[in-house]
Amino acid sequence: MADERRAAPVEFWFDFVSPYAYFGSTQIERVVARHGRAVDWRPVLIGITVLKVMGMRPLLEYPMKGDYLRRDGARVAELLGVPFRHHGLERVNSVAASRAFLWLKREDPERAVPFARRMFDRLWVRGADITPVQASAEEAAALGADAAALRAALEQPEAKQALKDEVDAALARGVFGVPFFIADGEAFWGSDRLPMLEHWLQHRRWDPVR
Amino acid sequence: MADERRAAPVEFWFDFVSPYAYFGSTQIERVVARHGRAVDWRPVLIGITVLKVMGMRPLLEYPMKGDYLRRDGARVAELLGVPFRHHGLERVNSVAASRAFLWLKREDPERAVPFARRMFDRLWVRGADITPVQASAEEAAALGADAAALRAALEQPEAKQALKDEVDAALARGVFGVPFFIADGEAFWGSDRLPMLEHWLQHRRWDPVR
Repeated sequence: MADERRAAPVEFWFDFVSPYAYFGSTQIERVVARHGRAVDWRPVLIGITVLKVMGMRPLLEYPMKGDYLRRDGARVAELLGVPFRHHGLERVNSVAASRAFLWLKREDPERAVPFARRMFDRLWVRGADITPVQASAEEAAALGADAAALRAALEQPEAKQALKDEVDAALARGVFGVPFFIADGEAFWGSDRLPMLEHWLQHRRWDPVR
Repeated sequence: MADERRAAPVEFWFDFVSPYAYFGSTQIERVVARHGRAVDWRPVLIGITVLKVMGMRPLLEYPMKGDYLRRDGARVAELLGVPFRHHGLERVNSVAASRAFLWLKREDPERAVPFARRMFDRLWVRGADITPVQASAEEAAALGADAAALRAALEQPEAKQALKDEVDAALARGVFGVPFFIADGEAFWGSDRLPMLEHWLQHRRWDPVR
């Protein structure tokens, strides 16, 4: 039983529009692999769905908090040693990109995480939009995936439903922000919590281990 | 100039009603002292003032987030090795306690931080209310402070004004949550950011230091 639970993948809930989800995406595989676990990447629409359920607006729209978050990205990137830029794009949304990710995860699973990395990179490193279907098609094609099939799939109701189901699953688990990590029922909100997630993976207890 | 800036105290903004401010209060002196700096403890009314300015409700009232935060306290306490309990009290507020802290800071400065620690302990360890003036008077008296003078001072408009000024100063600095740390103009929100604050105090730069 303990071994079975140990083997379960760590859920990594992300939204491409979140810079902290991007930061989390650059760290999570390494952290989890150190403890012999796998990561299950799961998209969620935090800004346009989850925050609404909570009665909140997108974080950048809050006075003070927005200023802080805008300044914070650059130093976190420096600290992690990863490239980053504020894209300055307005009304970016991750609906098509998230649907594309889920389609790849089902149809071409080897390419799903590389695709997610390219989409994060596209928005947060190259500063290019991820909103249009064309963006997902380009990045999928660059990986050698079947971009025509992807485009066709994104027009089907199944692709919409798959993302809707994923957002519902996130809400059912209490995912109220991104990045959000769940390991063995322990939930962690925010890339700042990666050290705490790692403590859990290593010790599976909370009291200080000496 | 660099030495002068190095000597400036690190601002620690807290609200007694926040469990994360309590957690921060148990760590901040040690973190900052390791780098030869002092801490300036500054109270702010986050729940009843700052969140309102931001158009937010107290965090525990948000669906999902409240559940997470309620579960999170116990494990963070275990990890830090500090005592903690959910007090279950309703409508706790820190107005009188914060006014008392500021009065002590001015009139009996040696006892101000010990008083703050006792108030955090009262609420988050002993689970006793901090709202009535009586609570502040008891904890001040236990430290040997002049509780009668404190009680009298808290009825004067100066005590109200001092706290109002402090909240205004917090808003002017962009303090939108607690604990909030400011060192050399670098702002850090949340006790999760203590490692990042420490990185700053040690290196005064963000790129990875090897």
